Amino acid sequence: MSNTYDVVVVGGGISGLSAAKLLSESGISVVVLEARDRVGGRTHTVRNKQVKYVDLGGAYVGPTQNRLLRMAKDLGLETYKVNLNGRLIQHTKGKSYTFCGAFPPAYNPFVYLDYNNVMRTMDQWAKEIPAEAPWKAPHAAEWDRMSMMEFINNTCWTQTGRRFATIFVNLIVTAETHQISTLWFLWYIKLCGGTTRAFSTENGGQERKFVGGSGQISERIMERLQGRVMLESPVIKIDQSGPCVIVETLNHETFEAKYIISAIPPVLTTKIHFEPELPAIRNQLIQRLPMGSVIKCMVYYKEAFWRKMDICGCMIMEDDDTPIGFTLDDTKPDGTEPAIIGFILSRKATLMTNLTKEERKRKICEYYAKVMGTDEALHPVHYEEKDWSKEQYSGGCYTAYFPPGIMTQYGSVIRKPVGKMYFAGTETATEWSGYMEGAIQAGERAAREIMFQMGLIKEDKIWQTEPESVDVPAIPITTTFWERNLPSAHGLIRFIGYSTFFGMAAAVGAFAYKKGFMTRV
Amino acid sequence: MSNTYDVVVVGGGISGLSAAKLLSESGISVVVLEARDRVGGRTHTVRNKQVKYVDLGGAYVGPTQNRLLRMAKDLGLETYKVNLNGRLIQHTKGKSYTFCGAFPPAYNPFVYLDYNNVMRTMDQWAKEIPAEAPWKAPHAAEWDRMSMMEFINNTCWTQTGRRFATIFVNLIVTAETHQISTLWFLWYIKLCGGTTRAFSTENGGQERKFVGGSGQISERIMERLQGRVMLESPVIKIDQSGPCVIVETLNHETFEAKYIISAIPPVLTTKIHFEPELPAIRNQLIQRLPMGSVIKCMVYYKEAFWRKMDICGCMIMEDDDTPIGFTLDDTKPDGTEPAIIGFILSRKATLMTNLTKEERKRKICEYYAKVMGTDEALHPVHYEEKDWSKEQYSGGCYTAYFPPGIMTQYGSVIRKPVGKMYFAGTETATEWSGYMEGAIQAGERAAREIMFQMGLIKEDKIWQTEPESVDVPAIPITTTFWERNLPSAHGLIRFIGYSTFFGMAAAVGAFAYKKGFMTRV
Repeated sequence: MSNTYDVVVVGGGISGLSAAKLLSESGISVVVLEARDRVGGRTHTVRNKQVKYVDLGGAYVGPTQNRLLRMAKDLGLETYKVNLNGRLIQHTKGKSYTFCGAFPPAYNPFVYLDYNNVMRTMDQWAKEIPAEAPWKAPHAAEWDRMSMMEFINNTCWTQTGRRFATIFVNLIVTAETHQISTLWFLWYIKLCGGTTRAFSTENGGQERKFVGGSGQISERIMERLQGRVMLESPVIKIDQSGPCVIVETLNHETFEAKYIISAIPPVLTTKIHFEPELPAIRNQLIQRLPMGSVIKCMVYYKEAFWRKMDICGCMIMEDDDTPIGFTLDDTKPDGTEPAIIGFILSRKATLMTNLTKEERKRKICEYYAKVMGTDEALHPVHYEEKDWSKEQYSGGCYTAYFPPGIMTQYGSVIRKPVGKMYFAGTETATEWSGYMEGAIQAGERAAREIMFQMGLIKEDKIWQTEPESVDVPAIPITTTFWERNLPSAHGLIRFIGYSTFFGMAAAVGAFAYKKGFMTRV
Repeated sequence: MSNTYDVVVVGGGISGLSAAKLLSESGISVVVLEARDRVGGRTHTVRNKQVKYVDLGGAYVGPTQNRLLRMAKDLGLETYKVNLNGRLIQHTKGKSYTFCGAFPPAYNPFVYLDYNNVMRTMDQWAKEIPAEAPWKAPHAAEWDRMSMMEFINNTCWTQTGRRFATIFVNLIVTAETHQISTLWFLWYIKLCGGTTRAFSTENGGQERKFVGGSGQISERIMERLQGRVMLESPVIKIDQSGPCVIVETLNHETFEAKYIISAIPPVLTTKIHFEPELPAIRNQLIQRLPMGSVIKCMVYYKEAFWRKMDICGCMIMEDDDTPIGFTLDDTKPDGTEPAIIGFILSRKATLMTNLTKEERKRKICEYYAKVMGTDEALHPVHYEEKDWSKEQYSGGCYTAYFPPGIMTQYGSVIRKPVGKMYFAGTETATEWSGYMEGAIQAGERAAREIMFQMGLIKEDKIWQTEPESVDVPAIPITTTFWERNLPSAHGLIRFIGYSTFFGMAAAVGAFAYKKGFMTRV
């Protein structure tokens, strides 16, 4: 049989291709089966004359994403910094406020304490969650039963704090706060290096993009694999009942292999018919990890008018009626193709999916005009968008989320091999899960699991740390004494309450003494 | 092309077969494609010499399930009443209490008020949820964000009340309280006719079983369809890009049809590759409706020793360490093959799936011995079980559940046709969803949606009510004045608090007056 390989990789996204690249470089014969007519999975770079190139999916790279930086460098790609010259805008309760720095400021001291406390609490709780086994955290059961809505309601004391924490969650994981487990979300944030690293553009997850687009990562790996990537080959069956693994595709091709790597999101493995059936816990886990909901929208303008206004293009929009929750400047590094990229998040993606493309564009531009306070936003020259929820072979974007109760009841099998099948995909990563970085970590780890099985490497080489990128070093994220030690808004109120009580008691006592109501014994 | 039909039905469970039966009886050509080597889906009757026959899946039928009763009668099946002679047992905090009636009694008045209040509140809230559109309930958004754990914590005032409400939820929907939406659960209960109808054996959902097993329903419909049911034919592709629907199976057969009915659980439609892709909201909905987790366990004994002890065989077991949550007598109607059927529910099914069959049997028998207080339970003569979570072509049992936030964001497309594809399956029912009754209602409704499209019936005939069964009439479920009007435990405490306060105030006043501290003006 000619279609015989050491390893079949299911899925030609960054994770599957990273696995195939490493295996291939190690002299192992490999084939990648990709359902679509393109590689890249949840990354997709489109080229046309209006935009030159545009990333419709995963795009950003930043410090501490060292595997992605190494891979891109190896493939000859360069990064550039997302524009941050000028002020950011926070739009809330119908008003725009400009600011500098990663997080919006708060002029009300209670709101400031609330912001500080909710982010600090997330990072503190996350410390006790093991990256490789969140279900073993000391409070795993309790935190897994709790939705992030409950966490936010319990932690925040002001409406403003709650609103910001909610948009923070919506943006980071494209799901509603009441749909997701606190244990899972805090684990997810921990894997990014904390709330600040996850949310920041400068020195954070959104610092840079790739010149020419992130899609080149997959395209260039495909080139190197020299014909070992089969496009338009959705896998429909994995048969492990015999001595070899037999994989069948929708176009009736079969492949035989010693090992198989599943490098697709967990829920997409439901598309495959398994012989024998999957173990019960895995069969149920894959029904319980839905993909998030997001529409990415790129509006192109004749010029980057916001830069003239000393606005960098980053807008955080919190109100219910805004289609977009978050934007960044998406102009090319040489200043051409001025654009704003915006994210329609979670419930809003569901609400807006049935509009026409034209209607979405109009609503978005109207909102940009309102938020930036200029009619220039009403006159785009081009518009691109991608509704990831429509994609049969992604299921949604950016990543899978864990609803309450799933991590502790089913999560421990997330990358437990099933026979000769190993699990890659960013959802199985233990650093930057949900990101391109996690995809590479997971793909290479799954490849090395097989290399260990084949006797090519030792077991302690399966999991490898990555040296820091020389080109994009990470500046450590530090907290100030005040950030660490200021009370929460609620704590302050309580403190003021006590102080007032004791203060008044003391005052009354002093008054009483002075007036002679109390006398020394 | 010989494989051409008016309608292709995907799924040979009760819903798909009911649809096919009605279409076929109306002169419409139909084929049913079933993934397994048997019909019945989540019902499965196994025959062997130790047990004669046993229902490993859906089995019970009761008053108000009029479609199921009509269908069974049409197919020549008879029902029998589950044994209720003798006392029931509630086992909680390591102790067994016997009782009579549907719900366990409470000797502590606070616990009684708590039981009464939590069930009453569920039924009261459910009244405002429209059966056919729960997402339109006046409090839909609020109740959908709330898990049943939050509902129970907010409603119950005693630990005992909470424990019972939790096992009630676990038993009815085989999921954890923190995993499911309150809006969905209350809707689900409403569709059964309320908490009492759902939970009761006598005059409720578990009143009867079918002589010979429920699997006969599907088997006999298959006979009537005379070769129009294709077994071992999992559907892998549905192509609606041309004028006809083209359906392909795993064994490379293709079928052409004017219409198609999907009669499988929503999550199993992810196994199908769609051309064109599904609309975004449906593509995401089907990732968000996981199937419950249950292992059904039948322990056979030489004699029905519990009946000698004036115990009927119904046990409600609430403790964390019990494998089984609920049992019923499963002896044949003629008294042969004495047996207890027990349900390993939700998290416990996950915990126990990796034990051996022998270990599960031993643990179960040890617990039965403890709960009934007799060593006779330790000596079974036979054991049958079925772990539905392992089943690739069911995903789990009994039914799909809605996690928090899904009903309001995605639920409205649950049975919205996609092109020429209509949706059956018990999950799409508006009466007894999750049960065999719902399967028939949904299957016949989907068939009539197509008959309407074909111009054979009027639109107002698509949805039909079912006359009440003559053989199994329903006794109305009534509540007493006290059940309706007693305060909650919390309400009583508050009332006592006020009463005590005002009582004491009055007493102090009277005392003061008597003593002359107060004088008439």
